[in-house]
Amino acid sequence: MSESEFDIIRKYFTEIGKASDWLVMGIGDDAAIIAPSSEHQLLISIDTLNLGVHFPGQCAAIDIGYKALAVNLSDIAAMGGEPKWFTLSLSLPSIDHNWLKDFCLGLSQLASKHNLKLVGGDTTRGPLSITIQIAGETPAKEVIKRDGAKVGDSIYVTGTLGDAAAGLALCAQNEDRNSYREALVDKLNKPIPRIAVGMALRSLATACIDISDGLAGDLGHILEDSGVGAELEQDAIPFSDELLEYAEKNELTSFLELSLYGGDDYELCFTAAEKSHEAIEKVGIEEDCKITRIGKIISDNGLYLVEDNDTTEINITGFDHFNT
Amino acid sequence: MSESEFDIIRKYFTEIGKASDWLVMGIGDDAAIIAPSSEHQLLISIDTLNLGVHFPGQCAAIDIGYKALAVNLSDIAAMGGEPKWFTLSLSLPSIDHNWLKDFCLGLSQLASKHNLKLVGGDTTRGPLSITIQIAGETPAKEVIKRDGAKVGDSIYVTGTLGDAAAGLALCAQNEDRNSYREALVDKLNKPIPRIAVGMALRSLATACIDISDGLAGDLGHILEDSGVGAELEQDAIPFSDELLEYAEKNELTSFLELSLYGGDDYELCFTAAEKSHEAIEKVGIEEDCKITRIGKIISDNGLYLVEDNDTTEINITGFDHFNT
Repeated sequence: MSESEFDIIRKYFTEIGKASDWLVMGIGDDAAIIAPSSEHQLLISIDTLNLGVHFPGQCAAIDIGYKALAVNLSDIAAMGGEPKWFTLSLSLPSIDHNWLKDFCLGLSQLASKHNLKLVGGDTTRGPLSITIQIAGETPAKEVIKRDGAKVGDSIYVTGTLGDAAAGLALCAQNEDRNSYREALVDKLNKPIPRIAVGMALRSLATACIDISDGLAGDLGHILEDSGVGAELEQDAIPFSDELLEYAEKNELTSFLELSLYGGDDYELCFTAAEKSHEAIEKVGIEEDCKITRIGKIISDNGLYLVEDNDTTEINITGFDHFNT
Repeated sequence: MSESEFDIIRKYFTEIGKASDWLVMGIGDDAAIIAPSSEHQLLISIDTLNLGVHFPGQCAAIDIGYKALAVNLSDIAAMGGEPKWFTLSLSLPSIDHNWLKDFCLGLSQLASKHNLKLVGGDTTRGPLSITIQIAGETPAKEVIKRDGAKVGDSIYVTGTLGDAAAGLALCAQNEDRNSYREALVDKLNKPIPRIAVGMALRSLATACIDISDGLAGDLGHILEDSGVGAELEQDAIPFSDELLEYAEKNELTSFLELSLYGGDDYELCFTAAEKSHEAIEKVGIEEDCKITRIGKIISDNGLYLVEDNDTTEINITGFDHFNT
């Protein structure tokens, strides 16, 4: 007799992640039971990864498991949240135990690292697709939204930008492995959700978003929701050594565009008052995360790029799965 | 310029359902913000419907929207929960506005009826697939689980069984429309989540499950989790007039199997102590829902079917998407 959906759930999913006394009952009934804390607000987000759209066929199962959870954690990070639990819906064309084992390993590693627990799931037949809904918490009124950016605020980003887009381009090429390829493909497959930085920014950031669709589009959401504009210092946008090497070797002059319009970096973009600058530098040091000031919020609507003394208005258009 | 994911979300999804003051912020940021009640426990469940697996290509968008939410509501009903909010992840091969409009109408109708609110979502490109994660509430310790069935308890089901399986068979046939076809296909496409009954059973039922994979398999989960067995009175299993008519016209002698092993009925199967029988009959009358006592819990493991004086042990095997 072949294994049923229930056997798969039991075998692979019941032990993923960690919980504490907020979990009354996890996987195994019609619904999980959770005892929420009245001092906290719940943050809820859902994201899907589809084969051929969000990851290529040759992507390793462990990386798919990792990334499916990482992109959801990134949404919680962008709100200043502490992750608590998640549910998983997994559509599979058939049961492949090696694939499931590796996929769950990728999920588990990240779930354990961030102390969150898989509390429920659905496993069904269909084209390979992974949907995760995640829940995090913040103390009431400490959540960071998109609509709080004020004129005069500085604009910051974590990490470096454009790496994941370069990694995606490298995945499509048959280029030999080299020093930068691995690092850039790793940034695509294993983005680091900035949970600790997001939590540390609760009392500092006026607005925050995670960069999933390119800096221009995602900063654009902050600008639109806050009713402001922004000037970016082109030379301040942080690039990795590997991206610069990749750009040089491939005579790529437009690598700035990878940061502005390329997807999948999952770094945070946030705004903060000038007076918070020192505290923000301290967060970067304490959390061992590069944080770079890249511009400022202005009252004129629109997004402007400043290079030397030239100011150019640029498009606010993020990556759109339906228009690619 | 074609419409982006953000335009679609704004146009179709922000107004679905109803919320009250527990919703701090809905669709539009990295995560929704919810203020949970400390007097209640949260019930969390996730379910996916895939084209070609859970519904056929000719299924109307309004029915797909309805059913995607109904199957999730049914999980909340089975725990005695009151539905509060849900998130939606929708994978679409392309943007079809008529389809989206109808899909959202199906969702909205059911969401409004049960006072729940769509608080977040993800819309992306991929083979047609709908994942909903739903959250409900019960007062702490009033949740109905699967593991509480006791020897001597009566076994009940709501509604009639086997209709959805017959509806599925009829969908695959090119038979002319007739009196029973519409009713049976309706049971397949528009199952009624038994929310009010589930809530009324909180203090009465010892165990409860919704019948998504056939009575035998789903009652089997109660038996396994409770460490007991069951005897079902074959003649007591409730069938609709339409199913009996369908069976007669198609000379179908095995329609009992449709109830035991056919999926998608989404009725409740629950157990309760003998002393609660009158109260349960009252719930059926007050909620205008047929509730039928179909057997009893016994100490011997296994599921037995009793007809006249014959007792036969039957297989506990639910519908399994990977083994069909």
